[in-house]
Amino acid sequence: MDRALRQDAEFILSSSIQAVLPDQAVKKALKGIQKGSGKTILIAVGKAAWQMARAASETVEHIDQGIVITKYKHVKGKIHNVHCYEAGHPIPDENSFRATSKALEMVRGLTTQDTVLFLLSGGGSALFEQPLVTGAELQDITEQLLACGAEITEINTIRKRLSAVKAGRFAQFCAPAKIFTIVLSDIVGNPLDMIASGPAYPDLSTCQQAKSIVEKYGLHLSPTAQNCLEQETPKALYNVCTQVTGSVQELCTAAASACAILGYHPLVLTDQLVCEARAAGSFLASILRSHAGNDKSLAFIAGGETIVKLTGNGLGGRNQELALASAPGISGLSGAAVFSIGSDGTDGPTNAAGGYVDFDTLNSLNKKGLDVFTILQNNDAYHGLKAVHGLIITGPTGTNVNDVAVALYRA
Amino acid sequence: MDRALRQDAEFILSSSIQAVLPDQAVKKALKGIQKGSGKTILIAVGKAAWQMARAASETVEHIDQGIVITKYKHVKGKIHNVHCYEAGHPIPDENSFRATSKALEMVRGLTTQDTVLFLLSGGGSALFEQPLVTGAELQDITEQLLACGAEITEINTIRKRLSAVKAGRFAQFCAPAKIFTIVLSDIVGNPLDMIASGPAYPDLSTCQQAKSIVEKYGLHLSPTAQNCLEQETPKALYNVCTQVTGSVQELCTAAASACAILGYHPLVLTDQLVCEARAAGSFLASILRSHAGNDKSLAFIAGGETIVKLTGNGLGGRNQELALASAPGISGLSGAAVFSIGSDGTDGPTNAAGGYVDFDTLNSLNKKGLDVFTILQNNDAYHGLKAVHGLIITGPTGTNVNDVAVALYRA
Repeated sequence: MDRALRQDAEFILSSSIQAVLPDQAVKKALKGIQKGSGKTILIAVGKAAWQMARAASETVEHIDQGIVITKYKHVKGKIHNVHCYEAGHPIPDENSFRATSKALEMVRGLTTQDTVLFLLSGGGSALFEQPLVTGAELQDITEQLLACGAEITEINTIRKRLSAVKAGRFAQFCAPAKIFTIVLSDIVGNPLDMIASGPAYPDLSTCQQAKSIVEKYGLHLSPTAQNCLEQETPKALYNVCTQVTGSVQELCTAAASACAILGYHPLVLTDQLVCEARAAGSFLASILRSHAGNDKSLAFIAGGETIVKLTGNGLGGRNQELALASAPGISGLSGAAVFSIGSDGTDGPTNAAGGYVDFDTLNSLNKKGLDVFTILQNNDAYHGLKAVHGLIITGPTGTNVNDVAVALYRA
Repeated sequence: MDRALRQDAEFILSSSIQAVLPDQAVKKALKGIQKGSGKTILIAVGKAAWQMARAASETVEHIDQGIVITKYKHVKGKIHNVHCYEAGHPIPDENSFRATSKALEMVRGLTTQDTVLFLLSGGGSALFEQPLVTGAELQDITEQLLACGAEITEINTIRKRLSAVKAGRFAQFCAPAKIFTIVLSDIVGNPLDMIASGPAYPDLSTCQQAKSIVEKYGLHLSPTAQNCLEQETPKALYNVCTQVTGSVQELCTAAASACAILGYHPLVLTDQLVCEARAAGSFLASILRSHAGNDKSLAFIAGGETIVKLTGNGLGGRNQELALASAPGISGLSGAAVFSIGSDGTDGPTNAAGGYVDFDTLNSLNKKGLDVFTILQNNDAYHGLKAVHGLIITGPTGTNVNDVAVALYRA
């Protein structure tokens, strides 16, 4: 591994994450809110829920009751009057369902004078859930969708119909109280009906679309689930006010600024990447190969959320796959590195935020008898990268605005 | 379809092809050659064989005998003293084997005073072939490799070992006559042992690599084929002199120049693209989405050779898949278009050179009841594009230096 390039990567990534922490954004958004004269309830859901709730507790005068529902190991301390729960992600578990029941109890029987502060970040689709089918079937359907490489929007179109809280149904539950939603977006293009499956946002998806997705992937559903897919979701909500803070654009812009500080000439190729992870890695590597030998140092940045196609049973995540897939393409290309992380600090079901490779990585893997193609076919990027010190480990970052991949060429 | 964008695409593509026609390059290369005092034999193989042979016949003083072996419909007229044959591509057929036998007869019994002018272009792997296994097994193995998404280099590593002429064996056949090879490159990075499977170039691949590929994809082989894979290929050749002319770099540079003439700010992202075709289309679309709204017109160029993963039985090619896969991503994005062609004028087993889509294409497809995902899953981009006038048809261009994809944004 090239130590100087790895240090550049660490600096670029930590600067980028710092720029999209939700604290300032949440405080600013809350200042514009006109609360009612009744109770104030705080419901924070998602991977950045704890960080957002803490920021709110430092800003809002008084919170009567509150709940944080976030991923395991994401609660970092106590918040006054707020219960913090940890639960399963990306597959919802019993703790997701239990914590969501508590939240629903808390907003039951509110009046027009009461206020719900609803702080939403990515991961909410799994963490905030009261399923209308059995937990086992919900898990099975989610796994079917993940395994066939369905896009996140498709997964959500199905999942929201199997839920009592998603797709605007939580907002119906809170009525007539007013809900102020602050959203930290983790989906390309900030579609508010899709982020955490839009618990407090009118749903734009239709039963017809859900049916098409079922046919497209040949999903297996129980009669109960089939019935759920035929129940239309609310298309209008009159008690909700929504603000979006943070986005993958800001993440990419911050990455570009950090690159420039280090002397790279940065170009944000896209902040809306949605293609297959391995191909994205190969594409970035091919860009570096064509620009190698340039007399300037260059940085190509691609934000968004790639897709992993499951072909094996290994351990990894889309950022790790993207990085590892670029290793053959930049092998031996002095000065070249590719790295990618999830801004939440967790990539797939691993303890890594993402992966780093450079021109020497393929060589290091080969010396250990490891073959990149075999590792990728087994979706085992985690162990491949671990063997060559290519994992990027940040721990939970407190934010969640999607992923950023960077391809560096140091002249 | 946006007529102005389509016209821009036509101009960019025809200018790019014009810049990489082999005529001038072949003439220049031939002028430096010191022929012997004996016979001059011309052997031209590949998709650009006829064009290259004609250029040679206009330059070389006297050709005693010659053969052109090219793809069907690629012979455009008579050339003095040269027999022109057409044969199967990408799957070799009986005409490939027959024409190759004629070529081998022509170079049998040459002396040190004789000269072989060997004009090589892409497609030669299928067109120039004398198999050491049955034609049926050769076809079966090739189909196995194409179906599992093997890279062209992997396909060639196997195929050259099943051949009496590939991997330097043709040069051994011509010895002791001197061979002057002029290569029009169609493989990213110009690996001379891979272009047309290197009939007159020392082979760098090993039996061990061939064995790994067989295991990686679980290929089914007869005992005869297994035996062939254990015969090592020549690692040195003393009667060969090789010149490379034309390349995908020139194609990309020409595309960039044409874009600039039309007022676009061009950027050649890469001339070494090797990732999966659909993902490349999605990636280019995501670049356009992020740059839409820019006050300058932009052009992003990616040359190389993408891979098609076979998931259906439809008709198409990698350029058509790339273009079609970008349609959802640029849908509604005014001023955006993506197009991609093979410089030889044929993309996959179709009569199209590639495909064109713009911001209106998805809409047009939907109006006809066509779904992009379904079309792509069926590898049927040809019919999808045909329905919306998205095919680019040039006919055989006379050159073959790989593919170029262009993503345009007209401000």
